[in-house]
Amino acid sequence: MTIFEATCSAPVNIAVVKYWGKNPEKIALNLPTNSSLSVTLSQDQLHSKTTIRASADFTSDRLWLNGHEESIEKNKRLVTCLRETRALRASMEDKDAALPKISGLNIHVCSENNFPTAAGLASSASGYACLVYTLAQLFQLPLDASDLSIIARQGSGSACRSMFGGFVAWEMGSKDDGSDSKAVQIAPETHWPDLQAMICVVSDAKKGTSSTEGMQLTVKTSALLQHRIKDVVPKRMEEMIKAIQDKDFPTFADLTMKDSNQFHAVCLDTYPPIFYLNDISRAIIRIVTEYNKDGIKAAYTFDAGPNAVIYAPEKNMAEIYALLSHYFPGHQFDDSLGLLKNNAAPSALPQNFDTRISPVFEQGSVKQILHTKADDGPRVLETAKHGLLNPEGLPKRLA
Amino acid sequence: MTIFEATCSAPVNIAVVKYWGKNPEKIALNLPTNSSLSVTLSQDQLHSKTTIRASADFTSDRLWLNGHEESIEKNKRLVTCLRETRALRASMEDKDAALPKISGLNIHVCSENNFPTAAGLASSASGYACLVYTLAQLFQLPLDASDLSIIARQGSGSACRSMFGGFVAWEMGSKDDGSDSKAVQIAPETHWPDLQAMICVVSDAKKGTSSTEGMQLTVKTSALLQHRIKDVVPKRMEEMIKAIQDKDFPTFADLTMKDSNQFHAVCLDTYPPIFYLNDISRAIIRIVTEYNKDGIKAAYTFDAGPNAVIYAPEKNMAEIYALLSHYFPGHQFDDSLGLLKNNAAPSALPQNFDTRISPVFEQGSVKQILHTKADDGPRVLETAKHGLLNPEGLPKRLA
Repeated sequence: MTIFEATCSAPVNIAVVKYWGKNPEKIALNLPTNSSLSVTLSQDQLHSKTTIRASADFTSDRLWLNGHEESIEKNKRLVTCLRETRALRASMEDKDAALPKISGLNIHVCSENNFPTAAGLASSASGYACLVYTLAQLFQLPLDASDLSIIARQGSGSACRSMFGGFVAWEMGSKDDGSDSKAVQIAPETHWPDLQAMICVVSDAKKGTSSTEGMQLTVKTSALLQHRIKDVVPKRMEEMIKAIQDKDFPTFADLTMKDSNQFHAVCLDTYPPIFYLNDISRAIIRIVTEYNKDGIKAAYTFDAGPNAVIYAPEKNMAEIYALLSHYFPGHQFDDSLGLLKNNAAPSALPQNFDTRISPVFEQGSVKQILHTKADDGPRVLETAKHGLLNPEGLPKRLA
Repeated sequence: MTIFEATCSAPVNIAVVKYWGKNPEKIALNLPTNSSLSVTLSQDQLHSKTTIRASADFTSDRLWLNGHEESIEKNKRLVTCLRETRALRASMEDKDAALPKISGLNIHVCSENNFPTAAGLASSASGYACLVYTLAQLFQLPLDASDLSIIARQGSGSACRSMFGGFVAWEMGSKDDGSDSKAVQIAPETHWPDLQAMICVVSDAKKGTSSTEGMQLTVKTSALLQHRIKDVVPKRMEEMIKAIQDKDFPTFADLTMKDSNQFHAVCLDTYPPIFYLNDISRAIIRIVTEYNKDGIKAAYTFDAGPNAVIYAPEKNMAEIYALLSHYFPGHQFDDSLGLLKNNAAPSALPQNFDTRISPVFEQGSVKQILHTKADDGPRVLETAKHGLLNPEGLPKRLA
């Protein structure tokens, strides 16, 4: 009996023009109310990893997420991704009798994130990108990354952008069937290798309002969202694409911070209001604002949670880390890029920085800081070495 | 030698449709980018009190605020109010030779608030309303409250609304000289005696961004503000006026909360962003939202600071105070309306309230809670009893 199996990993992406709002008339298709743009971050620090095996021995489709078995049927978006990829495989098998009949087999899906789920760190983006990419490998689908992004989008909107490395736009599209609402790469990760990111994990508690619920409520109740959609985002997308093409960090940073602010503004204009930023998030905004007072050297952005991502050129990262270390003692630092090199302590605070803009926070207010950079899209991994399923088709690791 | 003197008090007002944005082409006139609407709160709890004396003995104009002498010349807006009222007095004296010549005398101004200045409790509103009202008394100006509101507006925008009791609109006006940008009373305080307010003083620290600076930055940088001004506020003003006329609390509350949220949303859309709400403010929003889950019973609103004002019908005030007492222990309670009557402790929490929506905050997170209600406009006080200046024309109390 042949076993069909694939293992892949996929990156998270952090948007610099935010996606917030689903077209209420096309909820099943997961179409956005505006285009968005993100940077794909390195899988060396943050990734989802998925193994999918198809076998005639399996009596049903099964799913394990981070070591817990979950119901597939209850997860409509996952069912959609599975149905779409299976249908594509079935039609290939219909046309070519030589192809193995995988589409009719049950599958076991095992997926893990190497970071806390649902803490505002885009876990659903890397998770669904990885699922769809691994399904495409398993079924040997002849689709490019943009084609796959259309399927991943139906799993989780922002997942479509994790189908590419580097700088990725999700074009909202205009067709009724959503077939042109897809990710495209604006520039590969090699285009701007100087761009790095510092992620501050403020809290890994499950967030209060899920993105899906939150954005539906915003679309329904925020008077300001319509203005953002119509009058702000289209121009901002154009400006952001140009800033990336030109590697113009001050403009990139300016637009990134403005768009993060505006996303949280429409959350606050939602009724009842949605808050993702807390006092620590706001202190990080103040710190970056003060650091930028004589010229833009860093950009903050916040997704649907209190965690900050700070984008900056490599040369500024030591100063940024020194500032974060000053205000947020007692964090764990992931220094896999070697920022501190041989120094145990961070470097001195930037000159001319007025430290009075915020008090020093108590130990552990920021739990973890990760230093990472823009990097590549999904990777195919060797199952023998990286596979998550044991010979019986059950997870090697259970929670 | 005759001494001319007047002593008055004026109330604070808390807007339910917020003023945020000065017309950048008319900065000197202090014209707003949108109309606004407020409730005047009782002077029994919060007020400014001002004594102004004119005397041939005085060698210069002098000013004391809360027991500190301040420069008049450096305060352009105060100079404007003084110049305008003196000019009106001078023209009266020109026309009627029998009138005492007060306009040419130097004055001493002594003003006190019975609450912390610049903590987001509308101290400049009551302060400038009181200044202009007292000047009008001193000079015996034949002006009605709307006329005076035009002068007070040039001191501090929201001061114009403190010229009336009850429910007061500041009509933005359309004339170039600002002569129709004035306050009008929508309904007197006797119209809706059931409406009460609970003020939570979250912090009496001086706020980070002054209203004037903040709103100028918002006008300059927020893309969303223009939409609020053009498309949201005009309709909201009409709906709010109708809700007040109908004493329709659910609609009044709904609009009040939405407008507070939107004001803070445009602050967040400002660049760099302006934050007035902190984690305690946000907890108060969550508490009111949960309290309203089966029907609107209270409305929060926040001005340019973290302090909350909760409007509600009298019958809900005991429950609201019980909730605030649960989450914010260690506050001082101003119970001059007799809410607790003979009970030392607040009543039980409302049934069906899910207390898990927020943790209990540490002692003193909310410093003070004041229970108050809608009430009358500026009052003329008897100088012999209430005057703030001693026979030498100096403050009776210095800080």
